[in-house]
Amino acid sequence: MPETTHRVTFEPDGRTVVVPAGRTLLQAAQAGGIPLEAPCGGKGTCGGCRLEIPDAPPEPSEAGRAILSAEELGRNLRLACQVQVERDMRVVIPDAARHRDQQILTESAAADVPLIPNVHKRAVHVPEPSVTDQRADADRLLDALADAGLDGLTVPAAVLREVPAKLRRLDFHPAAVVLGDEVVDLDRPATADACYGLAIDVGTTTLVGYLVNLVTGEVAAVASRANPQAAYGDDVIARIEFAGRERGGARTLQALVVDALNEILAEACRKAHIKPTVVYEATAVGNTTMNHLLLRLPVDAIARAPFVAASASAHAVGARSVGLKIHKRGRLYTAPLIAGFVGADTVGVILATGMHAGDRLRLAIDIGTNGEMVLGTGQRLLACSTAAGPALEGARIRYGMRAAAGAIDRVDIDDGRLVLRTIGEAPPTGLCGTGLIDAVAALVAAGVIQETGRMRLAEDFDGPPAIARRLGRVDGEPAFRLAGAEEGAGHEVLLTQRDVREVQLAKGAIAAGIALLLDAYGAALEDVEEVYLAGAFGNYVRPARARAIGLLPEVPLEKVRSVGNAAGAGARMLLVNRNLRHVAADVARGVEHLELSCRAEFQTRFGDAMLFPEAPGGA
Amino acid sequence: MPETTHRVTFEPDGRTVVVPAGRTLLQAAQAGGIPLEAPCGGKGTCGGCRLEIPDAPPEPSEAGRAILSAEELGRNLRLACQVQVERDMRVVIPDAARHRDQQILTESAAADVPLIPNVHKRAVHVPEPSVTDQRADADRLLDALADAGLDGLTVPAAVLREVPAKLRRLDFHPAAVVLGDEVVDLDRPATADACYGLAIDVGTTTLVGYLVNLVTGEVAAVASRANPQAAYGDDVIARIEFAGRERGGARTLQALVVDALNEILAEACRKAHIKPTVVYEATAVGNTTMNHLLLRLPVDAIARAPFVAASASAHAVGARSVGLKIHKRGRLYTAPLIAGFVGADTVGVILATGMHAGDRLRLAIDIGTNGEMVLGTGQRLLACSTAAGPALEGARIRYGMRAAAGAIDRVDIDDGRLVLRTIGEAPPTGLCGTGLIDAVAALVAAGVIQETGRMRLAEDFDGPPAIARRLGRVDGEPAFRLAGAEEGAGHEVLLTQRDVREVQLAKGAIAAGIALLLDAYGAALEDVEEVYLAGAFGNYVRPARARAIGLLPEVPLEKVRSVGNAAGAGARMLLVNRNLRHVAADVARGVEHLELSCRAEFQTRFGDAMLFPEAPGGA
Repeated sequence: MPETTHRVTFEPDGRTVVVPAGRTLLQAAQAGGIPLEAPCGGKGTCGGCRLEIPDAPPEPSEAGRAILSAEELGRNLRLACQVQVERDMRVVIPDAARHRDQQILTESAAADVPLIPNVHKRAVHVPEPSVTDQRADADRLLDALADAGLDGLTVPAAVLREVPAKLRRLDFHPAAVVLGDEVVDLDRPATADACYGLAIDVGTTTLVGYLVNLVTGEVAAVASRANPQAAYGDDVIARIEFAGRERGGARTLQALVVDALNEILAEACRKAHIKPTVVYEATAVGNTTMNHLLLRLPVDAIARAPFVAASASAHAVGARSVGLKIHKRGRLYTAPLIAGFVGADTVGVILATGMHAGDRLRLAIDIGTNGEMVLGTGQRLLACSTAAGPALEGARIRYGMRAAAGAIDRVDIDDGRLVLRTIGEAPPTGLCGTGLIDAVAALVAAGVIQETGRMRLAEDFDGPPAIARRLGRVDGEPAFRLAGAEEGAGHEVLLTQRDVREVQLAKGAIAAGIALLLDAYGAALEDVEEVYLAGAFGNYVRPARARAIGLLPEVPLEKVRSVGNAAGAGARMLLVNRNLRHVAADVARGVEHLELSCRAEFQTRFGDAMLFPEAPGGA
Repeated sequence: MPETTHRVTFEPDGRTVVVPAGRTLLQAAQAGGIPLEAPCGGKGTCGGCRLEIPDAPPEPSEAGRAILSAEELGRNLRLACQVQVERDMRVVIPDAARHRDQQILTESAAADVPLIPNVHKRAVHVPEPSVTDQRADADRLLDALADAGLDGLTVPAAVLREVPAKLRRLDFHPAAVVLGDEVVDLDRPATADACYGLAIDVGTTTLVGYLVNLVTGEVAAVASRANPQAAYGDDVIARIEFAGRERGGARTLQALVVDALNEILAEACRKAHIKPTVVYEATAVGNTTMNHLLLRLPVDAIARAPFVAASASAHAVGARSVGLKIHKRGRLYTAPLIAGFVGADTVGVILATGMHAGDRLRLAIDIGTNGEMVLGTGQRLLACSTAAGPALEGARIRYGMRAAAGAIDRVDIDDGRLVLRTIGEAPPTGLCGTGLIDAVAALVAAGVIQETGRMRLAEDFDGPPAIARRLGRVDGEPAFRLAGAEEGAGHEVLLTQRDVREVQLAKGAIAAGIALLLDAYGAALEDVEEVYLAGAFGNYVRPARARAIGLLPEVPLEKVRSVGNAAGAGARMLLVNRNLRHVAADVARGVEHLELSCRAEFQTRFGDAMLFPEAPGGA
C-alpha cells in the first residue's frame, strides 16, 4: 500500500522535497534540510516559518491570521507549520526567513555532481542450485549481480556466514547491498530503494549531518548538534591538551563526538522515515584534530611544533569500529587532510568551490573556530590555518549565543540611534557571530571603538547622545549596552571590551593569514578575482561589515560570494560521487601548506591586522 | 651477541638447516622438518634416528654402541640424538629411516617457486619531522618505504593508532612489516630478518603446518597434529551432520581445529626459536568442508544434494578473526575451492604437480579420507571426489593406527611365510594405511582373500600351513593374525573381514572415480602419461601393491610417481609466491567438476571396482 506523496518546490533555491500527503510545509522543509526557523516548534505562535504560496494559497489558519499582517496575507504569505501538503506545491521562502538557522545550511554546490555512489542496492533473481549448477552460493549471487551490471565484486567471509541462509529465506530473490567492491548484506527485494548515506561535517564547534538518498542523490534530511567536545575546550589545542593530560581523554572526546553523530543520524532518519540500518556509508570532513579524534588516531604531535599529523590520507573504516551506528557493515570514509591544522574540511571547501580547476585566482576563507584560507588556481593552491578562536561562532563572548531565536544578528546605527534585528524577531537575548561583527563594525564606524580596539567611556565620547548613554562599564571594563528593557529584553545584552579583543584576535589572525598567502603566492590583492566566504558565519555576515573591520580584505564587494557550509557540501559530494575521492586525494596532496606559526612576518602582520580602521568621525 | 650457528645438510634431499652450535642432529632435523623417527624422544634408546655421517664421524656415544651393530658403526652410522653439531656437517638419512613419519612430509615441488612473498619486513630510516617537513607520520613512513622499493602502500587506521608512538620510540628507525599493500606493524630494526609465514594443510584426519622463513623461502620447521574434529566423525559428512545437529556444533568444530593449528604453530615456532608474533601470514588448503569450518562459513548445504558450498573463492581474513594466534594483524589466506567436495587441497595438488600447464595427459590421485582425482592437461582439467573413508589413514580399522613406531607398514608372504616390517623396527602394535594395503594385497595374492573380498577360513584354505594357521575368527567374523607373541607383539594384531570391506569401499570409490573421469575426458587409461600419487598415503604405499588390489589403475609402474603431501606443498607455494594466488584462482575456476553422486554409472562402476582380482592360485 504505497503512501500518496506530493512534491514541494522551495524557491528561490528550487530544491524539491517529496513528502507524504498531510505533512505540513514546515515538516517538508525540515525533511529537505531547508532552513526555516520555527522557535515555537510549529505551534503557529512565533511566525518564524512564514513563506509565500504564490499559486492558489489556502485560506489562512486562525494562527496565521493572528500573526501575519493583512499586507502579508495579501502577499500570499502563510505559516508553513499551518499548511498541510495536499497537492504538489511551489513556495517561496522570503529573504528574511532564509537566514535563520545557520546550522542546517545546505548549498547548491554539491547538487551539480553526477550520482556515482559507492553504495548500490540491487534486487536480483539468483538461479537456484541444482546438480547441473553446483556453483557456490557466493558465485551464483555474484554472477547474478554481474548480469545486473555490477561486476568485479567479492563477498567477504563475514558476510558469507549469512549468505546461504538469507538467500534461501528470500527465495533466491534478494536485494544485494554492494559497498565499494563488496557485497555487505542481503535485504528484502522491496527495500531496494532504501539506500542511504550520511555526509558529516565534523566542526570544532558544530556537527552537521546530511542524510542523502543514494538512489536519487537528494538530501532527505539534515540534522545538527553542537560538538559536545566543547565542554573540554573551545578550540582544538585545548582538546588535544585534554586528550594528552587526562587518562582516557582521547577516548572521552571520541565517545562524545560519536554519540552526537549518532543523535544526528537518528534525528535525520526519523525525519526521513527510514531506519539507520539502511544507511550504508558515511563520509566525513573535519579538520586534522577532529579527523584524528574521530578515527581514534593519536593527536599529541598535532599540537606541538612541528605540528605533525599521524595520517593525512583518506581512510575507509568499518563505521562500527568507531561507534557510528549505521548498518552494521557500513563504512565511514574520512576525506584526506592537507597538512598541519589544515584538514579535510578545507579539501571539502576546495571541492565545493571548484578552486582546484580553472585559471582564475581565487581566495576561500572558511571561518570557524579555526580559520582556514586557500588561495590559488587549478595550477597551484596554497593553504594556511590560523586560530581564529570561537568568538565568531558565539563562544567566549559574554552574551554570545548560537544563531537561534532571540540572537541579535544585525546592528545598525541609523540617524544616531541603534537599530537591532533579532532572529525570529524575538526579544533579544544575546549576540550571534554575525551580530557580533555587525555590532563591532557599527561601533567602529560610530567611533565608540577606537583604532586600537579600546572602547570609549561615555565621558570620552562625543557622538550621538542615544549612543553615548549606552556606554558604561561591567566588571570594571568598558561595555556597550546593545539591548535592555527598552528593547524588550529580559536582561541587558552587552558588548564588552573583552569581546572586542576576541574579535580583534580573530580578524587579526585571518587578515594576517591572507596577507601571507598572497605574499607566498606572489600575488597582490587586486589580482584575486573572487573571494569565497565559507562556513555558517560566512553565509550570514554582511560582507561590507566584515570588510569594514578588516575581517575581509579590501576587495570590491561584487567579488565576494558566500558559499555556505562548503565543507559539508564537500562531504556530500564525496558521498554522492565516489570518483571524487580520487580527486580529493590529488587535491590534498597537491595543495601547498604554509605553516604560519614559525614565520616572524606572521606576528608582525598579526599585530598590524588587529587594529581597526580609524572612524571618519573618531576623536 | 650473535649465536654461533652451523649448517647441516641432510642427504639425499640436500636440504640444509641452520642451527645454533650444540644442538643435536635430531634437533636440527626436527627444526628443518626432516622426517626422522624418534619414538624414544631422543634418549638414545630406540635407534630410530640412525643416520650416516660420511665425513669424520664422531666417536659413537655409549647409547650408540649399545644400539648399533659393529657393521653399522663401521658404515659410519650414528644416532642423530647423540651427536651435537659443532661444525658444518653433511649427513645421509638411510632409506629405512626416511619413510617414518608420514605426517611431516615435505617435497621439493614447492622449492622451485620464486620467492615473491606477500610479507616484507624492511628496516628503514624515516626522516624526523621539522617545520620544513610537516608530512604526516604515515606519509614520511610510506615515502621511506617507497625509497626502499616498497611502494603503493597504505597504513590502515588501526595501525596508525600505534605508528606515531612507535616511530618515536624506535628513533624513526623501524623495521616496517608490510602485508599485502598495508603496513601492519613497526618492529625493532634488528628483527628485520624475523619474518615468517605458516602454510597449513587442513586435512580431514591430519593437520600439517610448515613454518617458512619468508626472507629465505626455506622451511624453518614442520609440525603436525591429528585433526581433533575426528572425535565428532571420521569423515566430512559426519562432521557436517554434527554441525547441523548440535547447537554450536560448527563453533565446536572450528575451535577444535584452530586449537590444534595453534599447537602446530607453537611447536613449529619453538623448533625454529622464534615467537609466533613474527609469523605474519598463514596460507591454508583444505577440502570444502575443512575450509568452511575453519572460516566459520555455513556447511549445511555442502552435505545434501546438490552439494553447494557457501563460497568457492579464496579469502584473506584477519588471522585473529578465526582464532589463529600469529601476529595480531596477521592474515589467513585460504586457497580457492573447485566445486562440491573438491576443495583447495586439490588446487594445491594441481599447483604442486604443475598439471595446470603443459600438454601431457596426467592423473593425480590424492588419497585421504576423501579421495580427490584430477585428470587432464594445461588445456582442460577434470576433477572429482569420492568418499574413500578414513581406512587408508588407519581409522575404522580394528588394529588401525597412524604411521608411528610399531605400526606394521609392510606385509609380504615369502616362501609360504609371513614377513612383516614395522616402523622403527619396534614390536608390532597395529597397522598403518600402507601396511593395510600391503596386507590385503599379500592376502589376495595368497588366495586368503577371494575376488568378492570374502576371507577364507582355515578349513577352506589350501595354501601354505604357516599362513593357514593364522586364519581364524574374531567376534564371529573371519580374521587373519598378522602378529602375535611369536612376532614379539604385546597383543595380537588382526586383519578382520570388516577391515577388508573398508578397503574395498575405499578402492572401489577411487577406481570408479578414475574410470568416470576417463570417460568424461574421452581418454583411455593407456593415454595417461603420468600418474601422481599424492598424500601421505600415496607417498609410502608400494605402487605395485596398490595396483595389485585395484586401488591404482592398471598403468605401467614407471608412470607412477609419489608426490608426497602435494596439497601442503601447494599451500607452501602460495605462501612463498603471492603471484601464484592469481594462478590458483584461475585453476579453481577453470577445472571442470564431475559430480559423481548423481551418476548411475558411478554405482555400477563402484560395484565392479570393489572386487579383487582373482588370485592365480585361488580356490
